[in-house]
Amino acid sequence: MINQLISKIRRTNAPIVVGLDPMLNYVPEHIQKAAFAEYGETLEGAGEAIWQFNKGIVDAIYELVPAVKPQIAMYEQFGIPGLAAFRKTVDYCHEKGLVVIGDIKRGDIGSTCEAYAVGHLGKVQVGSKWYGGFNEDFSTVNPYLGSDGVKPFLKVCAEEKKGIFVLVKTSNPSSGQFQDRLVRAKAQEGDKPLYEVVGEQVAAWGEEYMPQEGAYSYVGAVVGATYPEQGRILREIMPKAYILVPGYGAQGGKGADLVHFFNEDGLGAIVNSSRGIIAAYQQAQYAHLGEKGYADAARAAVLAMREDISSALNGKTR
Amino acid sequence: MINQLISKIRRTNAPIVVGLDPMLNYVPEHIQKAAFAEYGETLEGAGEAIWQFNKGIVDAIYELVPAVKPQIAMYEQFGIPGLAAFRKTVDYCHEKGLVVIGDIKRGDIGSTCEAYAVGHLGKVQVGSKWYGGFNEDFSTVNPYLGSDGVKPFLKVCAEEKKGIFVLVKTSNPSSGQFQDRLVRAKAQEGDKPLYEVVGEQVAAWGEEYMPQEGAYSYVGAVVGATYPEQGRILREIMPKAYILVPGYGAQGGKGADLVHFFNEDGLGAIVNSSRGIIAAYQQAQYAHLGEKGYADAARAAVLAMREDISSALNGKTR
Repeated sequence: MINQLISKIRRTNAPIVVGLDPMLNYVPEHIQKAAFAEYGETLEGAGEAIWQFNKGIVDAIYELVPAVKPQIAMYEQFGIPGLAAFRKTVDYCHEKGLVVIGDIKRGDIGSTCEAYAVGHLGKVQVGSKWYGGFNEDFSTVNPYLGSDGVKPFLKVCAEEKKGIFVLVKTSNPSSGQFQDRLVRAKAQEGDKPLYEVVGEQVAAWGEEYMPQEGAYSYVGAVVGATYPEQGRILREIMPKAYILVPGYGAQGGKGADLVHFFNEDGLGAIVNSSRGIIAAYQQAQYAHLGEKGYADAARAAVLAMREDISSALNGKTR
Repeated sequence: MINQLISKIRRTNAPIVVGLDPMLNYVPEHIQKAAFAEYGETLEGAGEAIWQFNKGIVDAIYELVPAVKPQIAMYEQFGIPGLAAFRKTVDYCHEKGLVVIGDIKRGDIGSTCEAYAVGHLGKVQVGSKWYGGFNEDFSTVNPYLGSDGVKPFLKVCAEEKKGIFVLVKTSNPSSGQFQDRLVRAKAQEGDKPLYEVVGEQVAAWGEEYMPQEGAYSYVGAVVGATYPEQGRILREIMPKAYILVPGYGAQGGKGADLVHFFNEDGLGAIVNSSRGIIAAYQQAQYAHLGEKGYADAARAAVLAMREDISSALNGKTR
């Protein structure tokens, strides 16, 4: 799946993943009205509204980008009907040929962790039959619990040829509260921040899980665009890990900040934008397209993002 | 809700939470057969089987314990029908007067974290209406992302008078991989393990969120029974945090290990057992009850656990 992702990135020339994180206040009024007319102002109505919204976005962008990243929290808040919309979105994106990164940030231990891995990336056994619960291609994983919280995912990844992105240095302002704490390392090395220790572990996990010798690994990492200097260091620590980069656009990351997340081969990173694309129609520069043109605005925002990243990478001197 | 939990612990004299983590291979054959006869060997069939299994357990133990802790991963692996069984279980436990701790270990940032908080502990707005997605009373939360991943939960907790348990030192063998790393502290303090730094932060978050002056806070912590020495230290660092203690029983924690997790008032900790109770009928000592007696075995295991903890606490000398 990492090879598939890379070949799609090459074909689209867009190391971009569109974050399908539909807040109800991003959903244009005509879509909300139609959904509520059919299902009432219920959780089912909300699920229908975000599903129809997503469908419009996906139809507008699927030829331009390799992947989407639905953020499951935005669906989970609407309970079962919300999660049904998540599943429907995953399936539809697959129909359209997109790679789906489930932004689920799960992390647990033992059989519990296996259950998450199986439910999102694998298949679960029921009697003599096997089923996929949510069927994503990649998941994000929280590393706080150590190897016990990651290895069950790796096992399923190896079986299914799927992948994970481990949280290393997140894009938010308070990510340094624990991730940047200097931890004692070997005597000759000096202290280093926790995110470097986690990054080293990601590289170590990844060495055992790659599709072929020398390729990018099934084990990627999440490093926020808002921390370009840390990105540069982590790029060196984890040369074979694909880096999923959130924080571009609405959170403040710019094209120029992204340069150091990529390798010399022009690969190695995929940049996420959520709000900046799916709610582009609410920005002044796309306002002329109106609410009904929300999908066109998303398409235009993808093209602008592709251009921004491409310029930054072409101007790259290392 | 923390006050309600404490009064239930006092009334039952059982600082025990039953982990409702139903693996299909815990579910007796007659229950699986009945569920598959009705729904086939499908995800719906699996959902029905774990729901019926849970119902039997809850009916047998609801008068003996204050709380249950369904582990959402065990439901999520069965996709939407599994999560429907989770929701049904939460509602049924509430009917029976139990406090419900959703073991969800979520953690994200900003509006995404708000969505998790709202979906599990609060209410989400749909048009002019408000709905609870999963309606738990407490959630477990992963702290790796820092305050940005916790504060949205605290906001909802304050509004709804609910609570969280933050992962501090987890019960698994590899929990030390990151959590035990020595981090540089202030010059006069010397280095300390990361879990202490997280514990200090839990205490700080908790100071602002307590039902009344001097009470136990809405912000609790997860500390594994398998690490009693760390439990003693964390008990001192977070005097007003209720500690949720996993790892008792099947994972190796014993009654005597639990003593230091409690405060002088006999309160301050609640101990989880999952497999050891819900799959007690698979143990040699309860085998005479048979598969059909699985709920009686669970009840007997709760009584034995209550006795074990009570003896340990009565023998406590500090």
